[in-house]
Amino acid sequence: MSFSPGETLRTIRETRPLVHQITNYVVMNETANVTLALGALPVMAHALEEVEEMVALASALVLNIGTLSAPWIESMLKAGKAASARGIPVVLDPVGAGATRLRTDTALRLLDVVDVTVLRGNAGEIATLVGVEAEVRGVESIGSAVSPAELAHEAGRRFRCVASVTGPVDHVSDGDGSLAVANGHELLAAVSGTGCMSSALTGCFLAAKPDDPLAAAAEALVAFGVAGEDAAEDARGPGSFHVGLYDALAALDPTTLDGRARVEQ
Amino acid sequence: MSFSPGETLRTIRETRPLVHQITNYVVMNETANVTLALGALPVMAHALEEVEEMVALASALVLNIGTLSAPWIESMLKAGKAASARGIPVVLDPVGAGATRLRTDTALRLLDVVDVTVLRGNAGEIATLVGVEAEVRGVESIGSAVSPAELAHEAGRRFRCVASVTGPVDHVSDGDGSLAVANGHELLAAVSGTGCMSSALTGCFLAAKPDDPLAAAAEALVAFGVAGEDAAEDARGPGSFHVGLYDALAALDPTTLDGRARVEQ
Amino acid sequence: MSFSPGETLRTIRETRPLVHQITNYVVMNETANVTLALGALPVMAHALEEVEEMVALASALVLNIGTLSAPWIESMLKAGKAASARGIPVVLDPVGAGATRLRTDTALRLLDVVDVTVLRGNAGEIATLVGVEAEVRGVESIGSAVSPAELAHEAGRRFRCVASVTGPVDHVSDGDGSLAVANGHELLAAVSGTGCMSSALTGCFLAAKPDDPLAAAAEALVAFGVAGEDAAEDARGPGSFHVGLYDALAALDPTTLDGRARVEQ
Repeated sequence: MSFSPGETLRTIRETRPLVHQITNYVVMNETANVTLALGALPVMAHALEEVEEMVALASALVLNIGTLSAPWIESMLKAGKAASARGIPVVLDPVGAGATRLRTDTALRLLDVVDVTVLRGNAGEIATLVGVEAEVRGVESIGSAVSPAELAHEAGRRFRCVASVTGPVDHVSDGDGSLAVANGHELLAAVSGTGCMSSALTGCFLAAKPDDPLAAAAEALVAFGVAGEDAAEDARGPGSFHVGLYDALAALDPTTLDGRARVEQ
Repeated sequence: MSFSPGETLRTIRETRPLVHQITNYVVMNETANVTLALGALPVMAHALEEVEEMVALASALVLNIGTLSAPWIESMLKAGKAASARGIPVVLDPVGAGATRLRTDTALRLLDVVDVTVLRGNAGEIATLVGVEAEVRGVESIGSAVSPAELAHEAGRRFRCVASVTGPVDHVSDGDGSLAVANGHELLAAVSGTGCMSSALTGCFLAAKPDDPLAAAAEALVAFGVAGEDAAEDARGPGSFHVGLYDALAALDPTTLDGRARVEQ
Repeated sequence: MSFSPGETLRTIRETRPLVHQITNYVVMNETANVTLALGALPVMAHALEEVEEMVALASALVLNIGTLSAPWIESMLKAGKAASARGIPVVLDPVGAGATRLRTDTALRLLDVVDVTVLRGNAGEIATLVGVEAEVRGVESIGSAVSPAELAHEAGRRFRCVASVTGPVDHVSDGDGSLAVANGHELLAAVSGTGCMSSALTGCFLAAKPDDPLAAAAEALVAFGVAGEDAAEDARGPGSFHVGLYDALAALDPTTLDGRARVEQ
């Protein structure tokens, strides 16, 4: 496996891949802007009438269930199937799985019907999906009975995808190999939607490196974590940190990024 | 009545209550982020299939009619009834009541069917709901025939709830006792959704102080007003003020907050 | 034609016109906040039950198809027809026309059924609508076979409206007279939704100058471009630039604005 967040970032900026996002109302502007700040192109489209056509133009699809309703579920299924049929990588962010049956069931249904490439969630969400007891408060993970590294491994194995379990240290696994990413900053937990942002960025990295989703998923978390570290430098709280994240993503330097990665196998 | 915004803020940060918000598309990110910056946990969920389950996990429910449509009204009614049945406090923000019949009627229907704990609106909205003539321009209150203090008193009495009428000075009343809160800054009127933010924060304070909604509603406005005063210090306009609000909310000091309250009975 | 962005800005701030926006989920907060920062009043309302009533209160209507679905199309048609019947100016932003049939067809249907006053889009979108080959990637314009100036002229002529084609240099035409606006900054392309913002501001200027839509559309782009130039001064990237845009719009000086206009006929 070749692991180089800097090289993939350079590819993203050179090729400007289109990342189709069917995501929640809370973070649409935010995930569009992180995508753009990194160097890729976002597009949001959720109408049943256009999702197949739109995803066919895209280099990756991000599905995020944060503010679900019946018509959006149908569109996610349709877009996801179309992406799978065309070999376009799909990221699934199971926001709030474990909080309500609708969310848990929808995430499992998407995992069943769509060839999900990367499942990106917090420990509570991923624990729920693999059947491990976890404490979830709304969309926040409070704790789970097994370690995030084990959760990532089990989810990767069970769903035959790359599982990306984010937290203070992120754990990414395809059920075989695993990577731990220690980049990031605690202020990331103080802004709503940073998990969703990491899923959008995962889509960008997958778009540029579709043949190595384990590396791509971990590289995305390195890039986002490093941006978080940079944004924290001048932040005076969650508001200025949030603004700084976009500046930092746009300023990420491909030539130094690999050296800043804090990754362990 | 014990009145201590600092003490309630400390409780919020220690217990991190979940505040379920069914709100409008314009401010979802903003109300999620003020909730998080204050120290509580937001969750947005509006699907008819999950609102009862989600609200049962929450310590407060915030209903905001800013971008209504038929399915959202059904979900607000269902979530509101479920909250009432469980004794979970409910905040209603009647955004734009008076501008269209749909908004006025929906707000009145929610007040009729749901045990609304705090009705938080501007003078024009509250005037409309109690049948006083008012000038509303879209979702902005331009003026009303009676004073905001009287409006709060009358709305509290009429709807048997706490009415929280925000403006240059905020007036909070349960139809019996009343409080006036003079904290805040004029830049709050220059950012879209600050009224919605104050409703979300009211939900946070109610979650931590459910037995004294009159105090909790006023405390929330003190906290938000003080944050506005702090954010205005370094602001160069509405954009930087908006960002500074989140920083200021996160930096609120429970030990000095009571001393900064500008409250009169 | 009298051309004075400063004078129109002064009118906006004095009269605070209500601008009804039926727009996409990604930018609702952003377009509300640019409207407010400029000095006008935004209102978002999309329910079929209330759009006619709301638009009747407004001085301009902005329709933006960025996150279309069937019920929103119906509401846009209804609001647009009501605005046309009352002589209220309408801005159409055909976000993503050319990317999917749904978007292209909806934009053309709105142009057919509604008296669109200003059609504001990027070169790829406008090229698609006039039948010129163009490269569109999602909602980004990559290039078109004819110049933006020609596109504006042809769209203005074809649709009997003012066409406002934004890009590095903006071209505005009613099919007869044309104006080119060179204000702006490249960071505007690094933030999601700046095109949508320019459409919202076009609505504000039309509301204050309904009898001269060609001038009003160009004045809006001067104001937005100058704000972009000011915001870029202290920006450290797209995040701080985005924040600075609101500050700069609120700080626009009507007395100096005309002198900063970079406009050619």
